[in-house]
Amino acid sequence: MPEKRTLAIVGATGAVSREALAILDAAPEDDPLAQLDVRLLGSPRSAGQTLTCRGRDISVELFTPDSFAGVDFAVFAAGGAVSRDMAPAAAEAGCVVIDNSSAFRMDESTPLVVPEINADLLTDVAIGRGSILANPNCSTILAAVALYPIARALGIERAVISTYQAVSGAGGPAMRELLAQTKAVLEGESARGRIFKEPCAFNLFSHDSAIDPESGRNVEEEKMLREIDKIFASADEPVVPPRLSCTCVRVPVLRAHSESINLTLRRAAGERELREVLAVAPGVRLRDDRANNDFPTPRKAEGGDEVLVGRLRPDPSQDEGRGYDLFLSGDQLRKGAALNALQIARRLLERG
Amino acid sequence: MPEKRTLAIVGATGAVSREALAILDAAPEDDPLAQLDVRLLGSPRSAGQTLTCRGRDISVELFTPDSFAGVDFAVFAAGGAVSRDMAPAAAEAGCVVIDNSSAFRMDESTPLVVPEINADLLTDVAIGRGSILANPNCSTILAAVALYPIARALGIERAVISTYQAVSGAGGPAMRELLAQTKAVLEGESARGRIFKEPCAFNLFSHDSAIDPESGRNVEEEKMLREIDKIFASADEPVVPPRLSCTCVRVPVLRAHSESINLTLRRAAGERELREVLAVAPGVRLRDDRANNDFPTPRKAEGGDEVLVGRLRPDPSQDEGRGYDLFLSGDQLRKGAALNALQIARRLLERG
Repeated sequence: MPEKRTLAIVGATGAVSREALAILDAAPEDDPLAQLDVRLLGSPRSAGQTLTCRGRDISVELFTPDSFAGVDFAVFAAGGAVSRDMAPAAAEAGCVVIDNSSAFRMDESTPLVVPEINADLLTDVAIGRGSILANPNCSTILAAVALYPIARALGIERAVISTYQAVSGAGGPAMRELLAQTKAVLEGESARGRIFKEPCAFNLFSHDSAIDPESGRNVEEEKMLREIDKIFASADEPVVPPRLSCTCVRVPVLRAHSESINLTLRRAAGERELREVLAVAPGVRLRDDRANNDFPTPRKAEGGDEVLVGRLRPDPSQDEGRGYDLFLSGDQLRKGAALNALQIARRLLERG
Repeated sequence: MPEKRTLAIVGATGAVSREALAILDAAPEDDPLAQLDVRLLGSPRSAGQTLTCRGRDISVELFTPDSFAGVDFAVFAAGGAVSRDMAPAAAEAGCVVIDNSSAFRMDESTPLVVPEINADLLTDVAIGRGSILANPNCSTILAAVALYPIARALGIERAVISTYQAVSGAGGPAMRELLAQTKAVLEGESARGRIFKEPCAFNLFSHDSAIDPESGRNVEEEKMLREIDKIFASADEPVVPPRLSCTCVRVPVLRAHSESINLTLRRAAGERELREVLAVAPGVRLRDDRANNDFPTPRKAEGGDEVLVGRLRPDPSQDEGRGYDLFLSGDQLRKGAALNALQIARRLLERG
């Protein structure tokens, strides 16, 4: 009988934590995640609240520097500032930190992990020996899961990505703002919000992160460029990362991101070859039924573990076999955040 | 004193017709559009209804083959089938038909008109002499207005377009469906609709037009490819049309389309040069404030006449000066439909 392991979630009442609990709740008995002892850590505002997981009430404990004693995994989902402040202490206390914020992603010494792509980075990580692992940005994860197998099999020279990002990327309050604001607009009131400067009801807008005055790119776009680069270069079978251009846009959708992606392959390949690559790609499900106009949508992706990929077709503006378009949807809270973090924990647990 | 001209709108109670009335209603006295005698033609279902324009009640007349006597301009906004059936008869009766459907757009003999680009096509058209002119597809018009000036000044080799299309493109009933379905979802009911197969509330989906089983492109994407080609090739200063790839997506927005566009220029140009081109481009307004994160959105475009263009920035994946990204929003019902049609009428009226 293996030792009982403890997983703590920092930011216990946030959207990512709640999704992590839902995943743990639904884990089958033979999933090592099902055996975890779960602790919830939160701010004074949420301490004392009770959440349920696998039939057990879990009370949110006040998060302090002493919270990590006896904790094997610490999933940080409370924003960059909390991670920067506290993750190093958690690692020092012996925790394997899986950080959902952007605080450590680009640190040279921090593995940026998508288990389908670069699980070998976990070889040097061991339960009981403190370390910090970073969960990539949500849009990054979805694009990487779909594009890496193509890059490995055929080579991607360049990708142009336009996102359709759900408000959940800005947390639970943003989801509540979309719902409340939409209700207000339907009742004839004005579209005021606190999370987003722009109205979100029946509207969309360039991603609300800061714009670099020189490059003109926002922080979200910059993250995608750099993180995809780092993930592909650190893959178990490293590939030359594609050159990328990203345009990040928020849409009035609750919790699944979509991306329209135009590819330039390194060598000409047939559409069938591309389909065969995606059909067996881990974490990907092809949903591409032209006759029934059945393609990925946020609604179809919500609550699911896989990145749905469809609209795969040749790009008529490029040389035959070199250009393809595709469209994907994936749950921002699951594969884009909580699920990816728990998949990392599961890999380490399986290895024992 | 010039002769009083008559403009008839076919499809009188539809969303495009209502927008045309709003534009006519707001036209200043010295606008030739303000002098038009407006008639409304509709189906038995809408005949007898009364709409108002410039303080005058206008009763919807039953649309019959005899409706065109004494009509100078006939704006068809009742779908492709009605246009195919009736536009030739209207032209035979001496009307200048401005057809908002796709029925005649790709006919070799039919001018496909965006007045900012190819108004010279109107040289051979005269009031009183029957003819059919086509209004391009809404997404096409918005892209063409923004891209043509760049193509003329700098040359565009290739453009990759991902759209964020409002439901108004599917007409007034689709707008009502979005509102009703959203209300239902907020009240905990299921997201059922009749216009769209996919749920539209808090969701998005690949454009609901049929997919060609061979190319994988839907009808909307095919329209954009072909129409932009035809418009650019027939421009007053013709340009080599760019190679294009389009991905058309419907979003839960009421009436303004947005487009994320990645450009490859024919020759390297500085960002400032591109800005200068767009700053004086007819029908375009630059809205591109990086410091305040103030860029085009559907809400900002709604009810306006111009195509808002922003997020203009170099594409880091292309050779310096050759690649640029931009984002645009424009009112689908105005420049995408009613306004473009009325601008055509205005040009002909001004010429007398």
